[in-house]
Amino acid sequence: MASAFLTPVFMAIICVLIGIIVKGSRERTKKVQSKMNKKTEPRPWVDEDLKDSTELHVEEEDGGEWQGIDNDIAHVPFSTERYSEEDMVKRSKDFYELLNKRRSVRFISNNPVPREVIDNVIRTAGTSPSGAHTEPWTFVVVQDVETKHKIRDIIEEEEEINYKKRMGDRWVNDLKRLRTNWVKEYLDTAPYLILIFKQVYGMLPDGKKKTHYYNEISVSIACGILLAALQNVGLVTVTSTPLNCGPRLRVLLGRPANEKLLLLLPVGYPNEDATVPDLTRKPLEDIMVVI
Amino acid sequence: MASAFLTPVFMAIICVLIGIIVKGSRERTKKVQSKMNKKTEPRPWVDEDLKDSTELHVEEEDGGEWQGIDNDIAHVPFSTERYSEEDMVKRSKDFYELLNKRRSVRFISNNPVPREVIDNVIRTAGTSPSGAHTEPWTFVVVQDVETKHKIRDIIEEEEEINYKKRMGDRWVNDLKRLRTNWVKEYLDTAPYLILIFKQVYGMLPDGKKKTHYYNEISVSIACGILLAALQNVGLVTVTSTPLNCGPRLRVLLGRPANEKLLLLLPVGYPNEDATVPDLTRKPLEDIMVVI
Repeated sequence: MASAFLTPVFMAIICVLIGIIVKGSRERTKKVQSKMNKKTEPRPWVDEDLKDSTELHVEEEDGGEWQGIDNDIAHVPFSTERYSEEDMVKRSKDFYELLNKRRSVRFISNNPVPREVIDNVIRTAGTSPSGAHTEPWTFVVVQDVETKHKIRDIIEEEEEINYKKRMGDRWVNDLKRLRTNWVKEYLDTAPYLILIFKQVYGMLPDGKKKTHYYNEISVSIACGILLAALQNVGLVTVTSTPLNCGPRLRVLLGRPANEKLLLLLPVGYPNEDATVPDLTRKPLEDIMVVI
Repeated sequence: MASAFLTPVFMAIICVLIGIIVKGSRERTKKVQSKMNKKTEPRPWVDEDLKDSTELHVEEEDGGEWQGIDNDIAHVPFSTERYSEEDMVKRSKDFYELLNKRRSVRFISNNPVPREVIDNVIRTAGTSPSGAHTEPWTFVVVQDVETKHKIRDIIEEEEEINYKKRMGDRWVNDLKRLRTNWVKEYLDTAPYLILIFKQVYGMLPDGKKKTHYYNEISVSIACGILLAALQNVGLVTVTSTPLNCGPRLRVLLGRPANEKLLLLLPVGYPNEDATVPDLTRKPLEDIMVVI
């Protein structure tokens, strides 16, 4: 009688036990899954640009010299003009003094600039070295007034969104220090906007993607040579990297998906009343170490 | 009696039931965890360089102009030399012809080069723009014979490991196309090795890390200006990115952990019997689009 009475009690205990165990196991699973979700939280200010499938940093990690070319390419003798040591010192000093006058200028006049000069400075940028000689750059020169204004609209609109929505608290202090100028008049006034795209991959004859190793470094180096070429002819620009505008500008300019905007350079003469922040540059001893 | 006999049977069933449930829940947890592990598989050819905590691409995504500086910095009038259109065209053409003679040269003579020239080309590189004027570059100039040879040992050793162990199948074809020259004699013969480090973050007075936005693009642009300055004085180099050597070279050269090797440039005069691959560059119409 006693044990007959006990059986349903056991049954009850079992049910409770099973309930507890199942619940516990479910929670354990949830915990682990939530960890996973944290790992894959969206970061809009980054992922929007990644829509262009440009996250190839891993694939860019092939190293070595950038001269890697088909082995069947013939080698030819190379020689270069050799200057006297006196000339070398003078040329190096003159070039330094020329480039040291370069400043980032945001007050650009609408005075016209000869197209031939723009062609030549971009030809010059095209002499840059590149990983495996892929030459992974496209220089889009915008002189059309309407297109320039559309670019300005996109950039000013996106920038507002960036500051209002995309920036995490961790950026607040940095932004406080940054001159967040909403008005980018130079995008209308500069006679040319040069938008530099990096080709993050190429296409093989069989239609497969061909990784462009070091495309970002290669194109940035080309931009350094472009800045030197602009300074050499007395034109000014301001180096800008429109945040999150890449995809929209790429579509506006009809560039393919393998190209990602790296820099935008408005190019022209400075306004007569142009100003620049009163900055200094680090002295040589702060940037050079000799061993 | 019957129910008295059944009780232990119930107990047995309970034990089996509990066993099954617990096992099942454990396996579910394992499955999810193994998913997580897949997400974080090690990639030696990347992660070794990341030991320098340089994966700041997310933090580098702050956009806009690079002139962002404290608002309390005074602005001063800016003017630049204005050339006649005729002069501009000529200067742009001459500069293009000078830089178009630049080639990546791996056959570098041991003829000495005046230190003053090296100082000036690095001064010139230091005029480059940088995100928020952080000037995040360190140029390590190595002229010491023993240090140059240690650098060569590290690079040749690491390169062998790279090719033998680190490259995935997906790279095999690319590598076949690359001239994998194991001997890097120029690392001994070049009178100077310039190792360019990017400072991926700086230190604030309170000891906290200060992100250097766009440090890689900034330093690459500076390297483009450096290449132009070298070409301007008749010196040659080959752009190289020693794969996975960054941390070892950083330690060898006594650079801090916030600096990561970006490029290594051996600098000198070309050998008399120097050769270069018989390459051509893309014509202007292949790299420029005008709108």
